[in-house]
Amino acid sequence: MTEQLTGIADEIVRKMGLAMDERGLDALVATSPENVAWASGAAPPSQRTVRSRLAAAIVPRAGDSELVAIALEGPVVRTQSRLDGLRLYEEFVEDPVLVFADSLRQRGVERAAIGVEETHLSHADYGKLAAALPGARLVRADELFEELRMVKTPAEIEAIRDIGGAADRIAREVCGRFGSGSSEREIANFVAERYAEAGGDGLTMLVVGSGPRSAAVNAPPTSRVLERGDVIRLDIIGTKGRYYSDVARTAVVGEPTSEQQHVYDLLMGVHRRCLDALRPGALTSDVYRIYREAMDEAGLPPYHFVGHGLGVTLHEDPFVNELTEIPLQEGMVLCIEPLTLLEGRFGVQIEDEVLITADGYEPFSEAGELLRMAG
Amino acid sequence: MTEQLTGIADEIVRKMGLAMDERGLDALVATSPENVAWASGAAPPSQRTVRSRLAAAIVPRAGDSELVAIALEGPVVRTQSRLDGLRLYEEFVEDPVLVFADSLRQRGVERAAIGVEETHLSHADYGKLAAALPGARLVRADELFEELRMVKTPAEIEAIRDIGGAADRIAREVCGRFGSGSSEREIANFVAERYAEAGGDGLTMLVVGSGPRSAAVNAPPTSRVLERGDVIRLDIIGTKGRYYSDVARTAVVGEPTSEQQHVYDLLMGVHRRCLDALRPGALTSDVYRIYREAMDEAGLPPYHFVGHGLGVTLHEDPFVNELTEIPLQEGMVLCIEPLTLLEGRFGVQIEDEVLITADGYEPFSEAGELLRMAG
Repeated sequence: MTEQLTGIADEIVRKMGLAMDERGLDALVATSPENVAWASGAAPPSQRTVRSRLAAAIVPRAGDSELVAIALEGPVVRTQSRLDGLRLYEEFVEDPVLVFADSLRQRGVERAAIGVEETHLSHADYGKLAAALPGARLVRADELFEELRMVKTPAEIEAIRDIGGAADRIAREVCGRFGSGSSEREIANFVAERYAEAGGDGLTMLVVGSGPRSAAVNAPPTSRVLERGDVIRLDIIGTKGRYYSDVARTAVVGEPTSEQQHVYDLLMGVHRRCLDALRPGALTSDVYRIYREAMDEAGLPPYHFVGHGLGVTLHEDPFVNELTEIPLQEGMVLCIEPLTLLEGRFGVQIEDEVLITADGYEPFSEAGELLRMAG
Repeated sequence: MTEQLTGIADEIVRKMGLAMDERGLDALVATSPENVAWASGAAPPSQRTVRSRLAAAIVPRAGDSELVAIALEGPVVRTQSRLDGLRLYEEFVEDPVLVFADSLRQRGVERAAIGVEETHLSHADYGKLAAALPGARLVRADELFEELRMVKTPAEIEAIRDIGGAADRIAREVCGRFGSGSSEREIANFVAERYAEAGGDGLTMLVVGSGPRSAAVNAPPTSRVLERGDVIRLDIIGTKGRYYSDVARTAVVGEPTSEQQHVYDLLMGVHRRCLDALRPGALTSDVYRIYREAMDEAGLPPYHFVGHGLGVTLHEDPFVNELTEIPLQEGMVLCIEPLTLLEGRFGVQIEDEVLITADGYEPFSEAGELLRMAG
């Protein structure tokens, strides 16, 4: 465990305690992979692949916090979690939800107000928890978790800056090394290797879309071989120490056509106008309005979304769309990602990560001109 | 779309129709990634990473089936889905749960019995669906989906055999190519590359644990460098065309100690006794009992679990443990995986995939002697 990760957890548990004081809650129970990771620092590896392998970060207002996880993964989560205690359950022998209830009873909060994640806990598990704690009041805490996670702690900022910068460098390196004749899979393997060397846990989703595939959103790499004239879109999404990177770049193999160059330049203009609007106090809906106007002026079809917060999840508040009115604050980390997909032809995406600072923003990654690959 | 995948979907939709007739259901709504993949053939890429990006495979007893997915990923799921229709929703503009409700209304089943996944739909989303369809009866269909998925169709069997065999070959190739001085990450990169070459969608979880790390369950690869005398444990978990592989192998760098060899041989004996018990009609609890007795005789500590079904999820029914009494049937695909983890020292795992046949089983992968790596 590094000092950096210790810092993350201590600041976060303190933040949770203050929020419980304010809201009259006696405990918070994080069960989603993102909130377990955020509150405890731990990510039980099979939590996402085997849905029944639930985990919970149980943080009472007073007393010791505890991570509950599957016994099989004890050796892994023990080295990750910064909570006071670790309770392991045996799969098939114990029901994890009943173990959560028991942990809450041991903390004396079985008749108290307990914040839970109603958009994560399944309908069946919620019913089981309520039945096991008949004297407790289960309170929806989904929005509270989102709110607390929006403004990052200094240690969280450091973690995101680190892997975001690595993603930016890897994308540029790809363009220098590959070109006509390379396959999307070769590129994907190279990205995976460099990402691991940068200390990444792994890639969660990697877009390597070339030619007409550059216009398919979230296109995974295939055996398609790059040809001269192809546009290629890369989106490097993964985590390091549970924190996400999300940087997208567009390149062309050989010389761009004037249309390719034109669409890129227009989209880059839109991107810069969105970035210029970022400062504390600006509403996310205002940034979105600027995006819409800029896309309209450029004659490009707008999407209902141009940005999102980034942290222990890929997409989180503050969302930058028409309907979300969140005032930006110092310490928020956002991705801005204008996108133009001309289905069946080519797609252009420019995505950068930025930190909101006292007087504007600091880029964690920084797109420039249309990238070139050897053709 | 290959012929093979078309076959998978047609057989499965027919199976769902028969089950609805039997149970008096008018529609089935699959919402979990596994049941969406199983029922429709499609896997919207960001469904697992962004929880709010719900998808549903809506299959009525009579009339057209439909996949509902996020518009952004339309180009990807359109090429995957084998359902009759595709309905795309705009993120932030439309609530996916209300779109599911609308799709059900269009199919005339808004006053009917609708099977839903209570262990997947969140408490919040379940409430929203029930409110949007006040005349409908929502019925828990979680166990029905599990039951229907247990016996594989011929096309599903072909898909699992194909990628399971590839995982087995890749593990053997790793042992021939790497050894003392190689890092866990180099091995992981090689596995990822070969897995992609075999047509895999990607690795979902890859265990490369060497030295004392071989005793940590689900240990992801690190920069640790292999040394002479290390035990190394590999578990190759990923998917191809939405179907999982799960094959684990144990090797030693250089010459094994007599203890390493002895533990491996004991565990291999346990493995063979479990496999010998597999045939139609045998109860999973009986196979588990044989495992327990064999582990006791070998003097190895038993786990509460020695096997599981394999399909569109990594772990599914029929589970092979003390508490599950499922009679094996021709067409089931199982993993058998005895495991001995000596914490802080070394771990041994032997995991093979098998198909239950009319008179026993057919191996999709086949472990042999303790593997050796150059030391």
